[in-house]
Amino acid sequence: MRPVSEPGRTYAGAGVDIEARGRAVARIRELARETQGPQVLAGVGPFSALYRLEGYRQPVLVSSTDGVGTKLVLAQILDRYEALGEDLVHLCVNDILTAGAQPLFFLDYIANNGLTEEQKVRLVSGMARACRAVGCALVGGETADMPDVYRPGDFDLAGFVVGVVERDEIPDPAAVREGDVLLGVPSAGIHTNGYALIRDIFRLGKGLPREEEREILARPYAALGGTLGEALLAPHRSYYREVQAVRGLVKGIAHITGGGLPENVPRVLPEDLAAEIETARWTPHPIFALIQEAGGVSQREMYRTFNMGVGLVLVAAPERAAAVQAAVPEARVIGRVVRRRGPEGALLL
Amino acid sequence: MRPVSEPGRTYAGAGVDIEARGRAVARIRELARETQGPQVLAGVGPFSALYRLEGYRQPVLVSSTDGVGTKLVLAQILDRYEALGEDLVHLCVNDILTAGAQPLFFLDYIANNGLTEEQKVRLVSGMARACRAVGCALVGGETADMPDVYRPGDFDLAGFVVGVVERDEIPDPAAVREGDVLLGVPSAGIHTNGYALIRDIFRLGKGLPREEEREILARPYAALGGTLGEALLAPHRSYYREVQAVRGLVKGIAHITGGGLPENVPRVLPEDLAAEIETARWTPHPIFALIQEAGGVSQREMYRTFNMGVGLVLVAAPERAAAVQAAVPEARVIGRVVRRRGPEGALLL
Repeated sequence: MRPVSEPGRTYAGAGVDIEARGRAVARIRELARETQGPQVLAGVGPFSALYRLEGYRQPVLVSSTDGVGTKLVLAQILDRYEALGEDLVHLCVNDILTAGAQPLFFLDYIANNGLTEEQKVRLVSGMARACRAVGCALVGGETADMPDVYRPGDFDLAGFVVGVVERDEIPDPAAVREGDVLLGVPSAGIHTNGYALIRDIFRLGKGLPREEEREILARPYAALGGTLGEALLAPHRSYYREVQAVRGLVKGIAHITGGGLPENVPRVLPEDLAAEIETARWTPHPIFALIQEAGGVSQREMYRTFNMGVGLVLVAAPERAAAVQAAVPEARVIGRVVRRRGPEGALLL
Repeated sequence: MRPVSEPGRTYAGAGVDIEARGRAVARIRELARETQGPQVLAGVGPFSALYRLEGYRQPVLVSSTDGVGTKLVLAQILDRYEALGEDLVHLCVNDILTAGAQPLFFLDYIANNGLTEEQKVRLVSGMARACRAVGCALVGGETADMPDVYRPGDFDLAGFVVGVVERDEIPDPAAVREGDVLLGVPSAGIHTNGYALIRDIFRLGKGLPREEEREILARPYAALGGTLGEALLAPHRSYYREVQAVRGLVKGIAHITGGGLPENVPRVLPEDLAAEIETARWTPHPIFALIQEAGGVSQREMYRTFNMGVGLVLVAAPERAAAVQAAVPEARVIGRVVRRRGPEGALLL
């Protein structure tokens, strides 16, 4: 593991700028340290990260791991590593927020072949910023240099987060009733799912010359009010503040990732209930229409691939809906819970 | 995250055998479930894994992340995925054992371009077996299909483990004194560090035809009592049993990974002390001599790249050495703690 010392890389020897690496390691440690409170124990456990857990009656540890998928291909084309580090933290943290957890600590895995020390620092810098935003300590990581597995300049990222929640404060799907309302909170755009389809449509990461790929991404679209690249690299939004605000008010929290609304909302419902979602209730970000048109993608496929403008769905009793909206002004009712009649856990109207 | 549902993959659509995938997902869930005790909460938290923590006075959470490095290239050539899954768990778990932790749960990240469903199942099967061996629950994971990032058939693995230890049971480097003894526990071979160098020497993963690579690995060596491939793919040994056995007897535990003895042993010593290691005290596995000769590698470089036959080092007061050896009969004294005189934290004699 990375933080305390970096023994795993010295043998690479030839061609490695030891001084640049030393400076990068020092900077990475500093970035990590800035995220760490007194719960993180220093000076012990040099092979691992130590986090003191205090003040919980019935602690349940909540964990998740995920990667940014091939959004990283776009970040690479446009040299936007910091934002990608933020994406990684937020997408993992959002997953554990659905269980009502407070994020405690985060670890990252960066595998690469020839990322510069500066690029690695920028990735970690983005992670550190995102960790600070959600009160989470960046406690460790691994940077694996993998010649012959990754092509020169290529890399991959995985994140791992652990949080904690009191046993009796975990949102319980069994409490969901017919007639409960579904409230959607907007996404910032694509977030981190569906990039394989997007790259197929716009021919990104498909062997075109880098300059040509940059031109595709630099193209401005009136509907977007900016370039394609800016819209596609909009960061994965964190729902930390929103989930804190609705603590105790909701019965279920769904993070809308791969599979979209139809696959993610039913995950927080009992098996005999389904989600009825009225898609006319909100207007997705124009990037979705642009993708649909450019790729000739069906409406059904769009909703099963992308979040379509809703990144988080909250399930609440009807009498709590107003309180949820007072806590999260952006939340709007997008549907309701109905009795399940067929194989589909979600009906999109 | 993988375990509860697999929404993130459906849009890949064309070319994916949905039924085979469904069977693989079911099998992976079953494998994971077999590792899970009552601490793992099911039916809640569909976007994350939930683990109930009970019975600790002053719990400290100990975490680590790591990858198998380019050992995976050799596993790929010889189609040995299960063993690689075991490697991944043991190398991560060994890291947290150094803090005296009991492993609680493990998550994996598998990124790939075109691994078969069967290969994925075999990877997870190895992980599940290793998790069971150390009383750890395999609670989650992510399988990321990454076309255009990985070449067809290529993949990468990262593991994340969380354990727990009582605050006052963490081995404390500050307790180490001049004259304390260093006891080494044998490695099973290379473990998971140094494979970039090995692959350079034996031209593995360097573009030779796959058949030729298989021939290189199938070559028997009298000194090894078997083939090169068998020796190079010997599993990363778990030190779970050994660390349990010396609980309360040792002041420091070092996992000998990248950087070898010279870089890893000093990590568990105070800054004013150093490790004096008598290399004549043990005989490394013959694979190390074979690599050294085939590659013309210096003795110094060998000790800084490989574990050289010692996978774990225990630091104990001299009067405890006999008790440590009674608990771990394989452990043998390989050196002692001395006052530090120069920049080196370890002196190899």
